[in-house]
Amino acid sequence: MKRFVIAALVENKYGVLTRVAGLFMRRGFNIDSLTVGETENSQLSRITVTLRGDEYDKDQLINQLRKLQNVKNVKHIDDKQSIERELVLIKIKNSPKNRSEILAVTEIYRAKIVNYSLKTICVAMTGKPSKINAFIEIVRPLGIVELCRTGVVALERNKAIYDV
Amino acid sequence: MKRFVIAALVENKYGVLTRVAGLFMRRGFNIDSLTVGETENSQLSRITVTLRGDEYDKDQLINQLRKLQNVKNVKHIDDKQSIERELVLIKIKNSPKNRSEILAVTEIYRAKIVNYSLKTICVAMTGKPSKINAFIEIVRPLGIVELCRTGVVALERNKAIYDV
Repeated sequence: MKRFVIAALVENKYGVLTRVAGLFMRRGFNIDSLTVGETENSQLSRITVTLRGDEYDKDQLINQLRKLQNVKNVKHIDDKQSIERELVLIKIKNSPKNRSEILAVTEIYRAKIVNYSLKTICVAMTGKPSKINAFIEIVRPLGIVELCRTGVVALERNKAIYDV
Repeated sequence: MKRFVIAALVENKYGVLTRVAGLFMRRGFNIDSLTVGETENSQLSRITVTLRGDEYDKDQLINQLRKLQNVKNVKHIDDKQSIERELVLIKIKNSPKNRSEILAVTEIYRAKIVNYSLKTICVAMTGKPSKINAFIEIVRPLGIVELCRTGVVALERNKAIYDV
């Protein structure tokens, strides 16, 4: 199974998200992450989906999305030609024993401490999904209290998903 | 109308996302952003929703979410007691005229250039949603080609949304 990133521009109308989510469901697509965010145009939102499957699944998802109402544009974002980023917030147990290691890992990964309390240290990190995965595995033994990932956003390196 | 952030832990099962999206729809909730991401537990995903409405809308959404199957925990994240972050990727036109301004703004906002081509410069920035909004308005006159926001993730400062 390969991993695919698909981006769709949708109109900000009630029901679009339900139709999109319903499509993922009915077809039994294997979705790893989903983000829905505003774009430069307040009328449009952008949905980014990471899907696990084969070429056939990918083409199916794209074709089905294109048929939905209020979906303006759908595109497969080739991972060799794109920039992918994700953000994670992690709350880690703070104790005299693990504190120096948290600070070291945070610096090495260019993460940022966004909250510090006697009990927990909260860290924000942005990077490729693989870097986020690696960071999580490194801090896991230190005691993760809570963790929150945004899911992936992606842009093609030189093209827009619509013409400028 | 106020803005509320609601976080839900859901089991990674087919159908959960559709039920959640369907709920937003049927009730006509006014959703600004939605993220679905993995957590420290591979069985669970975390959904973060930003909602516009009054206290009644917020309580309704929470109560309705709690009734859904496979939804383990739902919590209102108080914005005075929380850390909110969002990530944006922005592709901006690259021309001799606007290049120095892009570089200056990127440095001031501690954003990061993640791709540089003759035609476009792609910038990643992480921050509070209000900072992201400000950054977008500053680069808008320079020519935004494409823009992709993850939507908001949020953690409470000292507590987990479930007990540790």
